[in-house]
Amino acid sequence: MSSNTSALLTDLYQLTMLQGYFDEGMEQTAVFEFYIRKKPPQRNFFIAAGLEQLLLYLEQLELSPDELEWMAGTGRFSRGFIDYLSRLRFTGDVDAMPEGTIFFPNEPIVRVTAPLPQAQLIETRLINLLHFQTLIASKAARSVLAAPGKLLIDFGLRRAHGAEAGLMAARAAYLAGFAGTSNVLAEYLYGIPAYGTMAHSFIQAHDDEADAFIQFAHAQPNNVVLLLDTYDTEAAAAKVVSIAPRLKSAGIEIKGVRLDSGDLGEHAKKVRKILDEGALPEVKIWASGTLDEYLLRDLLASGAPIDGFGVGTRLDTSADAPYLDCAYKLQEYAGRARRKRSEGKATWPGPKQVYRRSGADGGWTEDLLTLIEEDDRPEGEALLQPVMRGGKRLTPAPSFTEIRKRVTDQIARLPEPMKRLEEAPPYPVRLSAALQQLAREVDERSR
Amino acid sequence: MSSNTSALLTDLYQLTMLQGYFDEGMEQTAVFEFYIRKKPPQRNFFIAAGLEQLLLYLEQLELSPDELEWMAGTGRFSRGFIDYLSRLRFTGDVDAMPEGTIFFPNEPIVRVTAPLPQAQLIETRLINLLHFQTLIASKAARSVLAAPGKLLIDFGLRRAHGAEAGLMAARAAYLAGFAGTSNVLAEYLYGIPAYGTMAHSFIQAHDDEADAFIQFAHAQPNNVVLLLDTYDTEAAAAKVVSIAPRLKSAGIEIKGVRLDSGDLGEHAKKVRKILDEGALPEVKIWASGTLDEYLLRDLLASGAPIDGFGVGTRLDTSADAPYLDCAYKLQEYAGRARRKRSEGKATWPGPKQVYRRSGADGGWTEDLLTLIEEDDRPEGEALLQPVMRGGKRLTPAPSFTEIRKRVTDQIARLPEPMKRLEEAPPYPVRLSAALQQLAREVDERSR
Repeated sequence: MSSNTSALLTDLYQLTMLQGYFDEGMEQTAVFEFYIRKKPPQRNFFIAAGLEQLLLYLEQLELSPDELEWMAGTGRFSRGFIDYLSRLRFTGDVDAMPEGTIFFPNEPIVRVTAPLPQAQLIETRLINLLHFQTLIASKAARSVLAAPGKLLIDFGLRRAHGAEAGLMAARAAYLAGFAGTSNVLAEYLYGIPAYGTMAHSFIQAHDDEADAFIQFAHAQPNNVVLLLDTYDTEAAAAKVVSIAPRLKSAGIEIKGVRLDSGDLGEHAKKVRKILDEGALPEVKIWASGTLDEYLLRDLLASGAPIDGFGVGTRLDTSADAPYLDCAYKLQEYAGRARRKRSEGKATWPGPKQVYRRSGADGGWTEDLLTLIEEDDRPEGEALLQPVMRGGKRLTPAPSFTEIRKRVTDQIARLPEPMKRLEEAPPYPVRLSAALQQLAREVDERSR
Repeated sequence: MSSNTSALLTDLYQLTMLQGYFDEGMEQTAVFEFYIRKKPPQRNFFIAAGLEQLLLYLEQLELSPDELEWMAGTGRFSRGFIDYLSRLRFTGDVDAMPEGTIFFPNEPIVRVTAPLPQAQLIETRLINLLHFQTLIASKAARSVLAAPGKLLIDFGLRRAHGAEAGLMAARAAYLAGFAGTSNVLAEYLYGIPAYGTMAHSFIQAHDDEADAFIQFAHAQPNNVVLLLDTYDTEAAAAKVVSIAPRLKSAGIEIKGVRLDSGDLGEHAKKVRKILDEGALPEVKIWASGTLDEYLLRDLLASGAPIDGFGVGTRLDTSADAPYLDCAYKLQEYAGRARRKRSEGKATWPGPKQVYRRSGADGGWTEDLLTLIEEDDRPEGEALLQPVMRGGKRLTPAPSFTEIRKRVTDQIARLPEPMKRLEEAPPYPVRLSAALQQLAREVDERSR
């Protein structure tokens, strides 16, 4: 058992509630939905991500004998309940928006239909998995929009919040349109292209900077990108020019240089000039250093001749909006719609579907939030699709190519103002008449 | 192999640099130090955390045969280098501030002395581990300062950035003074006390709220904390009063109630009155819902009768400062001090020690940053201690009790203004004359 897949990676209240459900024999079907309640002002849209990891978690869900024995020893649970837990697996249904689908607040992206204890137990990890990748994919898409045509690489592993965050951020950024990641494990496990060259320490460990460049070029002849800012950026660029002929005669081509500190736009202009005058117009310029979509936009607007960006810390931590106000809420139990009315956190009851409508040009016009069963099938594309039935996946995982294409296609159909970094008017999400009527009925009933 | 412990959880440039070091036979001793360059304005001090996980990582560091074969297949590395990597283990030394030590910018908290390739390879995961727990411990200490004497519980797992973030945030918050966590795995793996009661879904799944309370009380008779805000907070408090006698006659005591939405201070006052007038003065009031140290301070300043707080999302994501500007930098190689001069990111060269000085009352007065070998041993307490030699730990891990006591003792000795939530004048960290002299010499040499 890895600590990432343990069923004990959950909040204690899931287990105490399950003891209650067990005592009462409450095992009828529950419907829960995961959605974002409210968007941060810095986001105009979200990209659904993390479903793949959720399905793996559901397929593998079980408590190990060691874990069960430990639970019994805590004195919190009855022996009958522990026995029951030893047999508990996820046997429910999941409907979901495919990864890479763009969505908006109040729209469920995952609907779970399962016996109440199962649907309850998975809450914490379900949110943990869907929230983070959705957070990062939605952030990464903004860098893609801010720097069209530029090569973007995730550099964030070191300041991501732990191992899984670094790995899942690499995945989420890649599916949102990044070209790759510095994270080797993401290439090993998922085939996401890994990029990387050298750190300042490599230069510092050598007594001479030009010598460090030459040694590195011989060690990595197909991947020569040289870091310029250890001591003096422009002086280092001049050294690149001076060593290039010697490397060329050894059959080694310098692919690029990287800037990592100071005024990146100004340095890029000076370095571009030095390289061009040194007959190295084909050498690309890379930039990194606490970048995000705002800085990318500003650098490119200022005409900085930068060809690619390493985007790290601020991407992997989603620094301008480090969490989303999301929830996984009970919508129906035992065939009866349920609604929470907590102040500022009220939910729309019942199992729901989202229909997306487009204009003649293919551009999206509005979404309609409905109950899954209404008298007339609404117009538009139904966004939640069946992905798991009886605890078994219905189809294999889509490829990254497919998910990345979905993101690109969908971003093209977004209303233009929503593609900008600034806050845009909210996307229209209407509620069906039947849904509003049901909410009124549920409120009447529980008054 | 778990993905959290893989040696491939690193940036590709570590491996490309190692190929270079291998080709050149650069295996002499390197000294790297981890420190925070600059503090965010919202933090007056930091608490060192994550050393335990770093030492485990170093002890276990190796590449598996599958990983090595995969590396060879990428075509990026020579066969000789892959063979070399198959034998690579961490055989170096580590000196560190013990977990729970308070520190300030520019002070190394971990110093690694090892053959250059080893010290280089570990960079990414070392930063990933030390950065996150230090980030969270430093944030958690602020809630402890804002709510003295209140029971504080980490509720953040669901919106933490992945599995490891949720687990390590629980650990970091606990060592900084929290009473426990909602995270069951943290109790299972580390013995951190887990707390938890019920969610809104438990109430919603029942047709009647009072019935849900009674059922829960019977299922968890030693842990009866009832959630009040599913429909109407004060109406639910009245139900608690009405069911209490019946539960009492069954030998069940209601321990507390929890508020999770709306104006928590106002609801707490009304609920306290209802409980007191209902002869339940001993029932505690808990509050939760996107809390942080600022809201805790404001709630308590307003006289809200709240006994404990669940602090979740904003703690586990360190929402007001989701990353720290930290680095792991080469200070010496092959006996020669090294210094990076990148704009805004210059380093102090050489292997260093931190001495802390106190006044007559035990309160701290200043720190002195020195080279490890200076002619006169400076006054004060040396903060970096030997923890690993030749890849082996010198002493067993300290207990949580010991680490928590260190935090409490150290916070007591901080200058008073630094204990407030507002930005305080920076703590005085002086540089020794020898350190300043060495920096000048290194600059001269590499000009």
